[in-house]
Amino acid sequence: MGGDFAPKAAVEGARRAAYAEDVEVTLVGTERARGEAGADPRIRWELATEVIEMSESPVAGARRKKDSSMAVCARLVQAGKADAWVSAGNSGAITAVSMFVHGRLAGVMRPAFGAVLPTLSGARSYLIDCGASVDCRAEMLAEFAQMGCVYSSAILGVPEPRVALLSNGIEPEKGTKETRAAAELLKHSGLRFVGSVEGNDLFAGKADVIVADGFVANVAMKTAEAMIELAGQAVRKDIRRNIVSTIGGLLILPSVRRLRAGFDWRRIGGAPVLGVDGVVVVAHGRSDPIAIEHAVLAAAQAVRVRLIDRLREAFATGR
Amino acid sequence: MGGDFAPKAAVEGARRAAYAEDVEVTLVGTERARGEAGADPRIRWELATEVIEMSESPVAGARRKKDSSMAVCARLVQAGKADAWVSAGNSGAITAVSMFVHGRLAGVMRPAFGAVLPTLSGARSYLIDCGASVDCRAEMLAEFAQMGCVYSSAILGVPEPRVALLSNGIEPEKGTKETRAAAELLKHSGLRFVGSVEGNDLFAGKADVIVADGFVANVAMKTAEAMIELAGQAVRKDIRRNIVSTIGGLLILPSVRRLRAGFDWRRIGGAPVLGVDGVVVVAHGRSDPIAIEHAVLAAAQAVRVRLIDRLREAFATGR
Repeated sequence: MGGDFAPKAAVEGARRAAYAEDVEVTLVGTERARGEAGADPRIRWELATEVIEMSESPVAGARRKKDSSMAVCARLVQAGKADAWVSAGNSGAITAVSMFVHGRLAGVMRPAFGAVLPTLSGARSYLIDCGASVDCRAEMLAEFAQMGCVYSSAILGVPEPRVALLSNGIEPEKGTKETRAAAELLKHSGLRFVGSVEGNDLFAGKADVIVADGFVANVAMKTAEAMIELAGQAVRKDIRRNIVSTIGGLLILPSVRRLRAGFDWRRIGGAPVLGVDGVVVVAHGRSDPIAIEHAVLAAAQAVRVRLIDRLREAFATGR
Repeated sequence: MGGDFAPKAAVEGARRAAYAEDVEVTLVGTERARGEAGADPRIRWELATEVIEMSESPVAGARRKKDSSMAVCARLVQAGKADAWVSAGNSGAITAVSMFVHGRLAGVMRPAFGAVLPTLSGARSYLIDCGASVDCRAEMLAEFAQMGCVYSSAILGVPEPRVALLSNGIEPEKGTKETRAAAELLKHSGLRFVGSVEGNDLFAGKADVIVADGFVANVAMKTAEAMIELAGQAVRKDIRRNIVSTIGGLLILPSVRRLRAGFDWRRIGGAPVLGVDGVVVVAHGRSDPIAIEHAVLAAAQAVRVRLIDRLREAFATGR
């Protein structure tokens, strides 16, 4: 029921995932959504009577709407009828429902989720927290680092992830009170801490896990999107100034289109919520069927690599 | 003596400014820099025996090196022998020297400076604080808004600037503890407060003054730079995949070069430090002679429009 193109994108995406891999899909939604979707032999349905809206307070929605589509999803997982659930809805509500129904993993203060960043080297970095945990204390940032390393190893295949803090300078005196304290914690964490990276190194591949407060990461990611948009529009406008560059622009159009799609993190699968005791994947609100498909496959992968067990072990051993 | 291309860029830039407009320029630097620069009839010299380095603690450098080029600059202004000073050196040190020598304007807690952002509409927004004041309390953010409005009116010619807070969402419950408190202060400030903008609206022209903690603004600006770099490299690589797009790429090269220069805020003049009792302009560390020239002209403009008096008045009347 969540996301800008619900329920159509979810239904189409679920179908794609159900046919593409050895995945069994149950759709959870209202009677009306089920009616719109029609029947499909590969898809089961579970009904929900409520929906947590985007405009709603996440915690209030999670607490009040016991029969929301998200709550029904989470209970299917708790009952062992599903291994994971996926939603393109209100990400705060997804996290809140996960906390209420699955609970936190022992030793975790705040759940978080990251974004996989493309880099100049072709490797992928993981920026955490993109789940908008704001006003994070140093201990939380250190925890995000630890969870990020598990994700980086288990999902991105990095054997010993390098961890950096996102800061306003690489010198130790730079940063906020909390990032400076987090640096001290990370130095003694047993993780492979490589210091701070600045915004201009966000896509340089200097670290595998980049840690930031959710407020900062949110602003940074959205600013990067805005910059692409601005640059694209400005180039288009400038190119039209003469016939030579207009022709040039037409010739490179396919390249530009391909790249825009590649940089569009709305379409890069889904992000598992780290720190809750269940596999829960947040898909971007603007997910189309392909993004939903990838989010479902991301959930399946998280189950397959035992992401939750690995997180639990990391926190049990203090690493 | 400051900046990546010192002293050459400063000397060349000063010459350009001295010939381009009715500006008298005094260069301040060491004997050695003066020797390298050679003589010019339009340029006076004042000698300094020390230099505050980029790697130095700004406050310690400002306190210890009484005869640094920055300190000599500031004393020339205090003595009435110059109306303003400009440096491409350590921006923290520029601010610290300004505080020590000129002092803060009455009612100002922390000095700040902003960056002029290009927008999709062609208008310019002013993002403040880009001076890396971190861990800002709500009162400081409100103060940045007030100083930003004076800059926007006096320098960018916006009669009644719209003020927004940079946040991770436009809903009132989004943001950090401090940005939410700042929103309350701004609602009752008499300024034209239009609420929050997200990172993806940073270049949308939705506000004339956008207020952020220096840590957040620093990360956002540098992320935007990194994004342009990443997109540019990726497009270049993709274009080379076939002959048609390679030709297309060559045809649009002049457009792309023009735009890169336009978006390079390292080259967009200089930023006056707001909140100190003297006209002080920070030029980017990577300033070339053209950037230094523009920084000198920005200083001259700030003097001409009586920027300091206007800031003093704004704080005296509580607006």
